[in-house]
Amino acid sequence: MSWLPSLITETPEEGYELAIKLSRMAVKKTQPDDDVRGKLRPDYAADFAALIASSQVVATNFQTVSAANNYWRDA
Amino acid sequence: MSWLPSLITETPEEGYELAIKLSRMAVKKTQPDDDVRGKLRPDYAADFAALIASSQVVATNFQTVSAANNYWRDA
Amino acid sequence: MSWLPSLITETPEEGYELAIKLSRMAVKKTQPDDDVRGKLRPDYAADFAALIASSQVVATNFQTVSAANNYWRDA
Amino acid sequence: MSWLPSLITETPEEGYELAIKLSRMAVKKTQPDDDVRGKLRPDYAADFAALIASSQVVATNFQTVSAANNYWRDA
Amino acid sequence: MSWLPSLITETPEEGYELAIKLSRMAVKKTQPDDDVRGKLRPDYAADFAALIASSQVVATNFQTVSAANNYWRDA
Amino acid sequence: MSWLPSLITETPEEGYELAIKLSRMAVKKTQPDDDVRGKLRPDYAADFAALIASSQVVATNFQTVSAANNYWRDA
Repeated sequence: MSWLPSLITETPEEGYELAIKLSRMAVKKTQPDDDVRGKLRPDYAADFAALIASSQVVATNFQTVSAANNYWRDA
Repeated sequence: MSWLPSLITETPEEGYELAIKLSRMAVKKTQPDDDVRGKLRPDYAADFAALIASSQVVATNFQTVSAANNYWRDA
Repeated sequence: MSWLPSLITETPEEGYELAIKLSRMAVKKTQPDDDVRGKLRPDYAADFAALIASSQVVATNFQTVSAANNYWRDA
Repeated sequence: MSWLPSLITETPEEGYELAIKLSRMAVKKTQPDDDVRGKLRPDYAADFAALIASSQVVATNFQTVSAANNYWRDA
Repeated sequence: MSWLPSLITETPEEGYELAIKLSRMAVKKTQPDDDVRGKLRPDYAADFAALIASSQVVATNFQTVSAANNYWRDA
Repeated sequence: MSWLPSLITETPEEGYELAIKLSRMAVKKTQPDDDVRGKLRPDYAADFAALIASSQVVATNFQTVSAANNYWRDA
């Protein structure tokens, strides 16, 4: 099964989780080695510039997912 | 209850507060340890590059929330 | 009264001023201490990377305000 | 007269010039002192990271101006 | 044949792959020398700031591809 | 003749080339001296942070050009 079958989610919160998944997948595609990513993770999770930059990526992907779901206006 | 039941808010100001919440939640999801985040906070709140970068994330999320609310044109 | 009663402005120039206000408010919400912000300001106002980054935040907020006002096409 | 009477321009090229103007105005509003900006300019104009960051701001403002003009499709 | 015959894809996952392709092509156009890019790659794939920045570019291109495909709502 | 007569292109690939042109023009407008830009180029083309940042600018301009062309859906 595809890791991304659809951009449609039931709720805004699930849409936010999908935005996080989209953000992490790009990192994984650039650095496919789990060990290397695993070693980098504690460093960047303790680096505020990296945390803010990650939040920016999530915000951008959340724009996409929110638009796809018509902002869950009818939810 | 969900931390994000809806993107719809009564007023632009509440929409702005929601944009801040969305921005912080991404940081929390990447660094779930409250202690680590608590230690980082005084540093980045005194670092102007980090403050501007945070403001960029809020601006991006505010775009999403504003579009969801049709810019509160009828408010 | 709310600091953000509406995204609607009479003119593009007022919309631009509102975009600046939105940009600064995020900084204020992250660093509420006026003294700390006041001490940081001369430094970042003399740092070109910070000035450009600030301009990026204003551009993002101006997108939002411009869309809200339907680009003042009928003004 | 306003420095920003309208977002509407005759041609895409004029729209691009307006995007540059919008980008510079945010810097001017943050650092109103002409002398300070004048001293910073040679440095950042020779710094490739700053030039790319400036180009990002122009691109963001050009999105706004292009949408306002309906992409000059009927021009 | 063109490297970019269309922005339309069958599925969201293919759309994501296209967003990655678009992101890498810009790097290739700026630095066309395969050897130089090949030497840079191990370094940036081990640099978390670079990985996050790459993820930001993919997110931006994925916005474009998703909009082009009307978010695969009918898929 | 204008360097930017229109945002409309025949194909997505030509649209991508236009996005690159828009990205470089902003750098040229900020640093009009060909010699200075020429000297900076080898450095930034070998700097992965700069290459990624350039790719971000192209992605942003490609959003604009793609929207202008209605994503070449009828091509």
